[in-house]
Order: sequence, then C-alpha cells, then structure tokens
Amino acid sequence: MHSESWLSLKRIVRFGDTDAAGVMHFYQLLRWCHEAWEESLHIYGLSPDEIFPNLKAKEDDSFIALPIVHCKADFLYPLQTGDHLEVGISPIRLDAGTFQVETIFKLKEHNVANGLVRHCAINVHSRSRCDLPEGIVSWLEASS
Amino acid sequence: MHSESWLSLKRIVRFGDTDAAGVMHFYQLLRWCHEAWEESLHIYGLSPDEIFPNLKAKEDDSFIALPIVHCKADFLYPLQTGDHLEVGISPIRLDAGTFQVETIFKLKEHNVANGLVRHCAINVHSRSRCDLPEGIVSWLEASS
Amino acid sequence: MHSESWLSLKRIVRFGDTDAAGVMHFYQLLRWCHEAWEESLHIYGLSPDEIFPNLKAKEDDSFIALPIVHCKADFLYPLQTGDHLEVGISPIRLDAGTFQVETIFKLKEHNVANGLVRHCAINVHSRSRCDLPEGIVSWLEASS
Amino acid sequence: MHSESWLSLKRIVRFGDTDAAGVMHFYQLLRWCHEAWEESLHIYGLSPDEIFPNLKAKEDDSFIALPIVHCKADFLYPLQTGDHLEVGISPIRLDAGTFQVETIFKLKEHNVANGLVRHCAINVHSRSRCDLPEGIVSWLEASS
Repeated sequence: MHSESWLSLKRIVRFGDTDAAGVMHFYQLLRWCHEAWEESLHIYGLSPDEIFPNLKAKEDDSFIALPIVHCKADFLYPLQTGDHLEVGISPIRLDAGTFQVETIFKLKEHNVANGLVRHCAINVHSRSRCDLPEGIVSWLEASS
Repeated sequence: MHSESWLSLKRIVRFGDTDAAGVMHFYQLLRWCHEAWEESLHIYGLSPDEIFPNLKAKEDDSFIALPIVHCKADFLYPLQTGDHLEVGISPIRLDAGTFQVETIFKLKEHNVANGLVRHCAINVHSRSRCDLPEGIVSWLEASS
Repeated sequence: MHSESWLSLKRIVRFGDTDAAGVMHFYQLLRWCHEAWEESLHIYGLSPDEIFPNLKAKEDDSFIALPIVHCKADFLYPLQTGDHLEVGISPIRLDAGTFQVETIFKLKEHNVANGLVRHCAINVHSRSRCDLPEGIVSWLEASS
Repeated sequence: MHSESWLSLKRIVRFGDTDAAGVMHFYQLLRWCHEAWEESLHIYGLSPDEIFPNLKAKEDDSFIALPIVHCKADFLYPLQTGDHLEVGISPIRLDAGTFQVETIFKLKEHNVANGLVRHCAINVHSRSRCDLPEGIVSWLEASS
C-alpha cells in the first residue's frame, strides 16, 4: 500500500460548515483536520479502539490518550457549500511522546487553507506524559 | 429560591450558530436546549460532577448517566446573530427512570422556537436502566 | 441510476462527535441527517448552488431557500468512535411547498438511531412560502 | 465604563464541549474565543448588525465583513464539564485593515488555555481588502 492512499483524502464543504457570511466558519477547518487524521489512521489500518478512548478504554489503566497541545490554521480563500477539497496530510514525529499533523486543503489545485494539530501522548490513568503508542509510531514512519 | 431563577434563562445568538442562509443553523437549537438544562441544574445547586461523566466518573462503577433517547424541535422564526432570547424550561418526570425537558425560546415575547429532550437513567458500568439520581429527582420536583 | 445509489450512504463516527460519556453526543445525529441529505442530492446530480445559499445567491432575489421547520430523532444504541454506520434515507413530499427526510442509521444490521428533518420552501427575498424548487421535486419523485 | 467590563468575561464548560477522553474537545476553544469576542463587542456597545452579516446585510453592498485569516491555540490543562473559566481578551490593531484578539482562559487563577484569532476587513460586495470599520477601530482603541 502506497502512503498516498492514507495521506491524500477528499472532503466536501457542507451547509452546516458555513456561517452567515456565506462561507465556511473558521473553526470547522480544525474539525476537518482531526477527521482527516482519523480517516488516515483507518485507511492505514489502525483500529479506532487502539487510538481513541471509548467505553472499554475507561476500564483500561494502560490506555494511552493523545490530547492536543497546540493547533493553528490559515485561511486563504472563502470556501462554500459543495466545494470539493483535496486534503493532503503530512505527519511528523517531534520527539518520543509528541507528533504533529499538517493538513493542506486545495480547491482546483489552489491552496485554500491549512491547519496544524500537535498531539502528545499521556497515560490516561496517571495523566503523565509517555511514549507514543506503537500503532501511531508505525503510521508516522510509514508516512514520512 | 423561586423556581423562576433556574427555569427562566437568557441566550444570545452567536455568529457561529448561523449558516449561509443568514440565520441559526437548525441543530444548534438542540445544543442550546442541553446547555440551558445544564445551566438550570447549576443554578438550582447541583454539581456537574454528580450529573455529567468526567475524568473521575470513569472510576466510579455506580455512576448514573442520563443518555438522551429522543429529541425534537420546531422552528417558527429565523434567528439572527445578536438576537436576545428568553429561554423557558419545563421539566417533567415521565417515570422512575425517565424525564424530559421542554424548552421554549422567545424573542421580544414571541415564540420563535421550541425543543424537547428526553433522558433515561442508566448505570454507567452495566449500561442497564435504573432510577433517576436523587439530585435530578429533587430538581424535577422543585421545578413542577 | 438506481435510487439505491443516492439513498443508501455510509458514515463513520468521529472522535469529535462523542462526549464525555464516551458515546456520540445527541445533536450530532441531526448534523449527520443534514449531511446525508446533502450527499444524496449531490449523488442524484443536483448542484449545491441550486439548493444552498452561497455568495452568489445573495444577489439572486428569486432564490428559493429550504429552511427547516421541524426535526426529531430517536437514539436506540450508544455509538462510539469508529463505528461504521449504514445510512438509509427516505424522502417524502408533504405538499407543494414542504417535504421531509427520514434517516435510519444501522450498525451491523441493527437500527441504532433515526432522525427526521422537515423543510419548507421560501423565497429568500420576500421570505414568504412558495413551491419547492424543480430540482428537489425531481429528486423527491425519483426517490419514492 | 472601564475596559475591564468588556475584556474580562466568564464561561462555563458544557457537556457538549467534551469528547470521549472526558475533557473539552480542542476546537471548541476557538468557538469560545469567537463568542468571547462577540460578547466583548456587545458589552462595549456595538450592535451585531454593524459587525456580523445578517439578512439585511445581504442587500448592503458597502457592508464590511471581518473574515478570519489565521488562528491558533495552546492547551495546557484538561477542562471538564462545569469548570468555571475566567476569560481575558487582549485585542490589537495590526494595520489599517487587520486586527487580532488574544484570549487567555484561567481556571482558579491558573492559565489553562489560550487562543488567538486574526481578522482582516473586506468589502462584502467586492471581496477586496479595506480599512477596519469605525466601530471596531473604536473598540480596539478603547481596549488598549
């Protein structure tokens, strides 16, 4: 499987993503970044149960969560309902317990927006920092 | 304390609540209903730790959650950024393990929208139905 | 093209759709209903520019908007991050200026939730009721 | 009126702001930043009709919109349902047509998160850059 398959995604702007100025409301872009990351992990082959807390995870004291410590976004062009976007993902491991994902959104080959989301790894029980889980490390290495 | 104080609230429509038609996007109203309910419990004097799962609740096997089993809403008038709404809450206990909250939104004394959210009580560990927690029963009785 | 193609869709529950109870937060379901409807119109072949107000629509006094007058939903089973849902859409024309879309969500062939959204047609300039636009009538007829 | 009154606000974390990790979902913070800004303008005395596009603004070709060109946020501490936050706003004019608002969130006097949102001014009809509207300039000057 070529990394293209889990790093190049698509997204369509939905009506509920817009505001009364007629275009995408800004923070929706950060939702799209997170959902593109989730889709990427899924295509790569990681189970959401490994990565995202769910009803079972509550009972697993060794579960590693990946809270977001920083995010940013730039908005270059107004996006409207129905726009078909190309979504390109570039993940980087920053250190043993931190990684970030840069996401670039294109409309008809022009950059229209970009976002960046930085995660750290913590043990869900102790809430102290730890190393990234194996699945994420594998996805990061395969993506670079 | 008169029940007025926790059943009559206020809310201002925010820009991010609107969509490209220039008015409130429909499902935001159900978010407002839920937040009005949270505000009502707070004013009445219930701690959010009793009612809403949080980091500690994960370790408490007797915690009672109040998942939503049904909701509905009617939209009578377009709401715009900055509109000051009066929010009236009418909670009713339906049976030992179920209650619902009807919420009426008024703008300048006219009904502009209403919503209804029905909750049941479950034990968070077993996920089976149980009686409503004491705090909620107390709030329901004081509200009727 | 068989109506199956625009009435049977898929959706994956995302982490941002959940709340601290570990499962989907209720009003997200109504967002999913609306987005499924948008996807259905797109697959059927309607342009979003015809249906949803955008930057151009502001200058078109004959544009017909489709505000939501009523919605409801039932929640039968807790949905978690990564759940793959089957989404079935059943639209019905109620009268010359009103239609509704019922949406049924299944997980592994079990009904887990359903939603209903009712729209009316209005002229965006006068804000008075009018007949449904041709594209929507065509989609409704092809869907029944 | 002292600037304190429109630059020091409050906010309570709501259940729908959280995700299945039990804490605030990251992008909600940027919604809070925007809503704090809206509240600040309201307390200062600006009408939302001057600042935010609404149904009337569609017919006003000289309306100035304030789209967001950049945002960022840092997350220092997990926020849970019911947390009472102090919200401090620091707006700065960057040039004739651009300003940004930094927002600092405190819980019991500790910094728990911060966000920054940068806006530019555009004429809604031509979509070209222009000077900030008078009301915003006045609010920026009174706030510094």
